[in-house]
Amino acid sequence: MRPVYIAGVGMTPFRKPGTSGGDYPALATEAARVALDDAGIDFEEIEQVCVGYVHAESTAGQRAVHGLGRTGVPVQNLTNNCASGSSALFYARQLVAGGLADCVLALGFEVMRPGPLGARAYPETTDPIAPFLEASWAVREPTGAPVMLDLFRNAALEHMERYGTTREQLAAVAAKNHHHSVDNPFAQFRDDVTLDDVLADRVVADPLTRLQCSPTSDGAAAIVVCSEGFAADHPDLDTTVEIAGQALASDTDAAFTSRSAIEVVGRSVSERAGRAAFDQAGLRPADADVVELHDCFSINEIITLEALGFCDEGDGGRLAIDGVTAHGGDVVVNPSGGLISKGHPLGATGLAQCVELTWQLRGEAGDRQVPDADVAVAHNLGLGSAAVVTVLRTTA
Amino acid sequence: MRPVYIAGVGMTPFRKPGTSGGDYPALATEAARVALDDAGIDFEEIEQVCVGYVHAESTAGQRAVHGLGRTGVPVQNLTNNCASGSSALFYARQLVAGGLADCVLALGFEVMRPGPLGARAYPETTDPIAPFLEASWAVREPTGAPVMLDLFRNAALEHMERYGTTREQLAAVAAKNHHHSVDNPFAQFRDDVTLDDVLADRVVADPLTRLQCSPTSDGAAAIVVCSEGFAADHPDLDTTVEIAGQALASDTDAAFTSRSAIEVVGRSVSERAGRAAFDQAGLRPADADVVELHDCFSINEIITLEALGFCDEGDGGRLAIDGVTAHGGDVVVNPSGGLISKGHPLGATGLAQCVELTWQLRGEAGDRQVPDADVAVAHNLGLGSAAVVTVLRTTA
Repeated sequence: MRPVYIAGVGMTPFRKPGTSGGDYPALATEAARVALDDAGIDFEEIEQVCVGYVHAESTAGQRAVHGLGRTGVPVQNLTNNCASGSSALFYARQLVAGGLADCVLALGFEVMRPGPLGARAYPETTDPIAPFLEASWAVREPTGAPVMLDLFRNAALEHMERYGTTREQLAAVAAKNHHHSVDNPFAQFRDDVTLDDVLADRVVADPLTRLQCSPTSDGAAAIVVCSEGFAADHPDLDTTVEIAGQALASDTDAAFTSRSAIEVVGRSVSERAGRAAFDQAGLRPADADVVELHDCFSINEIITLEALGFCDEGDGGRLAIDGVTAHGGDVVVNPSGGLISKGHPLGATGLAQCVELTWQLRGEAGDRQVPDADVAVAHNLGLGSAAVVTVLRTTA
Repeated sequence: MRPVYIAGVGMTPFRKPGTSGGDYPALATEAARVALDDAGIDFEEIEQVCVGYVHAESTAGQRAVHGLGRTGVPVQNLTNNCASGSSALFYARQLVAGGLADCVLALGFEVMRPGPLGARAYPETTDPIAPFLEASWAVREPTGAPVMLDLFRNAALEHMERYGTTREQLAAVAAKNHHHSVDNPFAQFRDDVTLDDVLADRVVADPLTRLQCSPTSDGAAAIVVCSEGFAADHPDLDTTVEIAGQALASDTDAAFTSRSAIEVVGRSVSERAGRAAFDQAGLRPADADVVELHDCFSINEIITLEALGFCDEGDGGRLAIDGVTAHGGDVVVNPSGGLISKGHPLGATGLAQCVELTWQLRGEAGDRQVPDADVAVAHNLGLGSAAVVTVLRTTA
């Protein structure tokens, strides 16, 4: 496998649906133009385009890049629920790593409909996981909320029962991530909220309050990846950031037969993707300075930190409340605000995580900069399932 | 690039929607099992799965392979309108060619709703090409039919005006393909029809009669591709067929600014994909013994044969009516019956073309065998756009 560098990154601000213009080609073009400008190249140098999204027509990727030029290159459209953006990046990296291309654009976007998370994004008729859940412990005590919410609520209850995790620990994750996004001009929410605010907010699916749930969002993100040779031909191109390891995993039987909601929402699949990505990079969780992970709900930050090996199983609850994962802690988790506060336009999310981490590794993250960051980890999860873990490293 | 072999192929019969059971995971599992059995391997040996479809949820590929085993490998879902199946195969081949995997499953399926072609498959609200057509010559004289039909109807009228192509020549394409499918147990239609039957059939969008239009269909197809090393480790594996060349192209400005319906329905994009695939293989159209091409409507077989270089521009009309492309002719085109008569389950179509051609190159095509076939060409087109041309060659 050849080394793969992040040559350019770009994203739009994430916005509440109905306030973004609702035009995905415009959002995608904006993000891609920023990434191309960041790389200092023209769209004509892109050899293949990998596009991730959930809610748009079959050749939406082509429409998304028409604004950049109609060069006739292959455009592949990928979809993997909330991991669609990372799935596009995974393909793009494979193309460069395998010597099939020297410069590839990965692009992700989503224009969502207003409404509670899940209700529109995952209509029951096409819910990919519903068939597995009918008889599962995972959806005991259904609240009538969308199945997605009940799943994560049950995972939270299970974590509380098994490991003694508290409501305060769950709420601390959300308070931290909302606090982080105050300094992020790309975030959908920038209000500083306290632990008490999170606890006192409207209960969406007990124990999860509204401030612990990622919103529906519109937005786009783009990353140009390139080979060593391409970088050598473009001396101004910044190759500070290398994709040192990356893995995409899908569920095994464990997710469906364990009768554990924690498993159903992705513990094992995240663990397997994480282990493979760290192994590829020759690094360990302890090497990471900064992490962007899939906190679609507060409980999932806790589960994911355990799954990726940032702490022991059952011990994730203490990390946010003890300040370990905040600015100034051992490892800064979701400095962008995460899905909870930056927003979650499905196809853009995974790429936006790596955009933020690229800025962090380059020292371009402004007021939310993690000092001296050299190793960064992104974790993006799509139920149904696809977990993508990406390990980025500075080359300088 | 490493050589890539077709290790195993499988497909379900193509059937009218409403008569297939309507269960895409069952269809997909059936096709994949046949392909795995044909390769003589277990699903556990598959390192990555590339799945193509249009009308199913975001992680449909994962559901489609759960019946084979939940091994946790990466599953990537690809969508490119009617070229979705070939887009999956294109990805799978890249993975093996680039040394990223040694054994990959490409899988495509579609369960469609009953109704006239286009009406359901391309609702106007998500029609990827409609925005480009509003002011175009290509949809002059709209008939009120779905835009897809009007497009191909106008391409036919344009071909008749510019090159003197006749209604009989158009009808001869359909009569040939219906005749071919009489010997194909996998075909949706197996009725032998005459040129007069085609001409006398109900007019769908003048000059196209019903028998000149591909139907809506349910079905699935699967192909296992592998590397030389994988084949060496599996001595019983049949590596008769190599993917010698393959290219995926998207539209350039020509498709939108030419004011030519022939361009809008894919002439240039097919030409570019074809040239690139033949160049890669080091072969020419004259080397081909058998072709499966995207005859979604009779006119498109004529346009495509010109675009791929099987005859001069404007000369395609005579090929079917003169017997050049029938059994016994210079090159047998659509021995399976093509989309017109075998059926057109969108995500399965491109893979099913290569399944048929693999059988032809191995000498396993039964009563529709093209004698001594050594070089085969598949052409799969998705408006919006993606044209995939695959050149297959025997290694023996």
